[in-house]
Amino acid sequence: MEFVTGVKKTEALELSELLAEGMAGNTVKVNGAVHTIRDMGNVAFIILRKREGLVQCVFEEEITNFDLKDLKEADTVEVTGILTESEKAPEGIEIRLTEIKILSEPAEPMPLAIAKWKLSTSLEAKLNYRPIALRNIRERARFKIQEGIVRGFRDFLYKEGFTEIHTPKIGAKSAEGGANVFKLDYFHRPAILQQSPQFYKQMMVGVYDRVFETAPVFRAEKHNTKRHLNEYTSLDFEMGYIDGFEDIMGMETGFLQYTMGLLKQDYERELKLLEIELPKTKQIPAVRFDEIKRLVSEKYDRKIKNPFDLEPEEETLISRYAKEEWDADFVFVTHYPSKKRPFYAMDDPKDTTFTLSFDLLFRGMEITTGGQRIHEYRKLLEKMEVRGMTGEGMEQYLSAFKHGMPPHGGLGIGMERLTMKLMNEDNVRETTLFPRDLSRLEP
Amino acid sequence: MEFVTGVKKTEALELSELLAEGMAGNTVKVNGAVHTIRDMGNVAFIILRKREGLVQCVFEEEITNFDLKDLKEADTVEVTGILTESEKAPEGIEIRLTEIKILSEPAEPMPLAIAKWKLSTSLEAKLNYRPIALRNIRERARFKIQEGIVRGFRDFLYKEGFTEIHTPKIGAKSAEGGANVFKLDYFHRPAILQQSPQFYKQMMVGVYDRVFETAPVFRAEKHNTKRHLNEYTSLDFEMGYIDGFEDIMGMETGFLQYTMGLLKQDYERELKLLEIELPKTKQIPAVRFDEIKRLVSEKYDRKIKNPFDLEPEEETLISRYAKEEWDADFVFVTHYPSKKRPFYAMDDPKDTTFTLSFDLLFRGMEITTGGQRIHEYRKLLEKMEVRGMTGEGMEQYLSAFKHGMPPHGGLGIGMERLTMKLMNEDNVRETTLFPRDLSRLEP
Repeated sequence: MEFVTGVKKTEALELSELLAEGMAGNTVKVNGAVHTIRDMGNVAFIILRKREGLVQCVFEEEITNFDLKDLKEADTVEVTGILTESEKAPEGIEIRLTEIKILSEPAEPMPLAIAKWKLSTSLEAKLNYRPIALRNIRERARFKIQEGIVRGFRDFLYKEGFTEIHTPKIGAKSAEGGANVFKLDYFHRPAILQQSPQFYKQMMVGVYDRVFETAPVFRAEKHNTKRHLNEYTSLDFEMGYIDGFEDIMGMETGFLQYTMGLLKQDYERELKLLEIELPKTKQIPAVRFDEIKRLVSEKYDRKIKNPFDLEPEEETLISRYAKEEWDADFVFVTHYPSKKRPFYAMDDPKDTTFTLSFDLLFRGMEITTGGQRIHEYRKLLEKMEVRGMTGEGMEQYLSAFKHGMPPHGGLGIGMERLTMKLMNEDNVRETTLFPRDLSRLEP
Repeated sequence: MEFVTGVKKTEALELSELLAEGMAGNTVKVNGAVHTIRDMGNVAFIILRKREGLVQCVFEEEITNFDLKDLKEADTVEVTGILTESEKAPEGIEIRLTEIKILSEPAEPMPLAIAKWKLSTSLEAKLNYRPIALRNIRERARFKIQEGIVRGFRDFLYKEGFTEIHTPKIGAKSAEGGANVFKLDYFHRPAILQQSPQFYKQMMVGVYDRVFETAPVFRAEKHNTKRHLNEYTSLDFEMGYIDGFEDIMGMETGFLQYTMGLLKQDYERELKLLEIELPKTKQIPAVRFDEIKRLVSEKYDRKIKNPFDLEPEEETLISRYAKEEWDADFVFVTHYPSKKRPFYAMDDPKDTTFTLSFDLLFRGMEITTGGQRIHEYRKLLEKMEVRGMTGEGMEQYLSAFKHGMPPHGGLGIGMERLTMKLMNEDNVRETTLFPRDLSRLEP
């Protein structure tokens, strides 16, 4: 028997430790993957890939106790050498190697040139070789920034008094109904995969007042577009005791402000690698659905085909309008038509054709749908009746309302879409770690 | 058009704001749900349930501008009154009401007496009325602490240089194979729900060195026990450049230490409500599988039936032994038999009947399985061949190894089980927000 007392210390140093003041001149130990080798004859540059970035190592025939022929790309190694400042090296430092120890070797050469600045490969090929393609440091930087977005969401909401919940993804019936639901066999009973945590987060408002979840959702939609996924990560929150849906927009604005600050502070390296300019979040315009349709139609001389729906092209034009007129990267479009919203959306008492709800557009694309919900049991039943819904399979959801619910509302943000627009990518698969679409189930 | 500039300020105060120094004597506004009403004649105590706890309000016939008959349990209200210090009140404060405004009303009386200290209800009834039962402040405290566990997991791992990943739950084939997999129809193709993010997190070690995920996993196991769920939240991490599986145990110990500290600091109210004594994490004994079997068999005079497996009763005895001999709440059991571990587990080179892996037991129950993995492509193929596996559908996983992987290992922790043992509960459903088991698909 031995006691384990905590994280084991290791001699090997990470990039940030190498970059610490006063380290130059020391003999250091570093491990990593051989990202690339540039052999110049007597001297060779061995670039190690570590989690924080690249480290340049210098191999010198007389000094390094190793035969360079025994080293190849994608080996993982532990090296020893003297840390030296060097203006030309990637991070301003290099290691003059004395020893190289091989930890593991690949069985075959790389299928992609991952050490290149840009992977000159089609999206399809990148996805087919996803675990390899992501070893390119710009490819992986995208998902490091995605981490920052989710982290920002959670940390901001903790601070605002929200409670994190974990709700089931297998259910007896879908929260929002409809045909776009994946079905499965659950011990010989029919079951579905949840399209959203909507019902659960609303029920939990009756418990914690404010809740959030960051988890996968599943949509069996037969869209094959650049903006649709059949499985994605949804950042959801729901909050009680609101005065109106403006409180939800305020909370989302607060999240965006907090998160852009977090990215600037903790993800600077990745922002630089990808040359990302963070969007403006100080003030986000909010404009009515019918009003912005009219404004866009007038400014860009475009006929309104359907006054109750937004086409993708209109979303693009709304964002263009917001940028030109208000210098805004984000724009809230409020008061969506009631018939385009689910039954639980609260209608505007002033005009029940419209709802107290909103979408958030970011650089031409919808990344959030949110709004105030109906909180009165009888009103919920009325709306369901109008829509021809029976409430079958929704007993638990309805029971939360039967036994009292505060005025509340919330939203859902598509993590991959928010990342995509932040990086000015034009296909959501570029910012999805392992996308699931109509034709892709692997890797 | 209006600009949204951030979180909207509200006049209504939360419990921690009421408790701030120098607040007594002020007129305050507070909202919440009417948890219970104690009518004493001229005076009534109205207890409001808020997200941080209960607030006592005093209704006085002559002073409060409201007819008490119009108020009932489960109303949500906004009240105004004078904040007063009061030794007898739950948090040492009460609000002497001047006004009550009703925000919403229930349609029917409560099916459970949620205002009681303990819900005197069967687990079955609690689960049937889950969204209502959770309004009991001790019931909901459990899941607040569960939040703290997951939060601790993430925050600790960020600090240790891990990257958070989001991997797909729908797949073409399961990571660990076997029959216990839920099957679904994916646009007329067969698909499954992932039993674990195992393959993905290993592949991602080749990208970020250290990764983690906190997400649902799905097990179609036909166990109907107090410790099994068919869907649960798994806390997974995987780390590269390890010297051995001891590094994984060290990291888990670090997580437990960090998280118990976080609970003590930020979740004191909930720990008190539930009278939880935090377990010892300063040093956790690690003992070999065969050795602890022998020790337990000797000490408790119990025959070893199967030298290659642990029965639940043995797990209980191992924890009892660890408590009695080493004063330990946790115990690592190392070197599990190879035949009980998946193909990717690394065998002990000294004796390939056993693996370089471990389980962590907490108060008599396995809450973690972890260990070192095979990182060499050829060894992985050899082990698969011995087990009669073809590698079909595992091409992407194997390709990561073909192109070089560092020595690595990791673990998975069952969130609900860890919460359960922390609270000394005897059924994992008690600490699962909305459990899924053989018979339960709702709510």
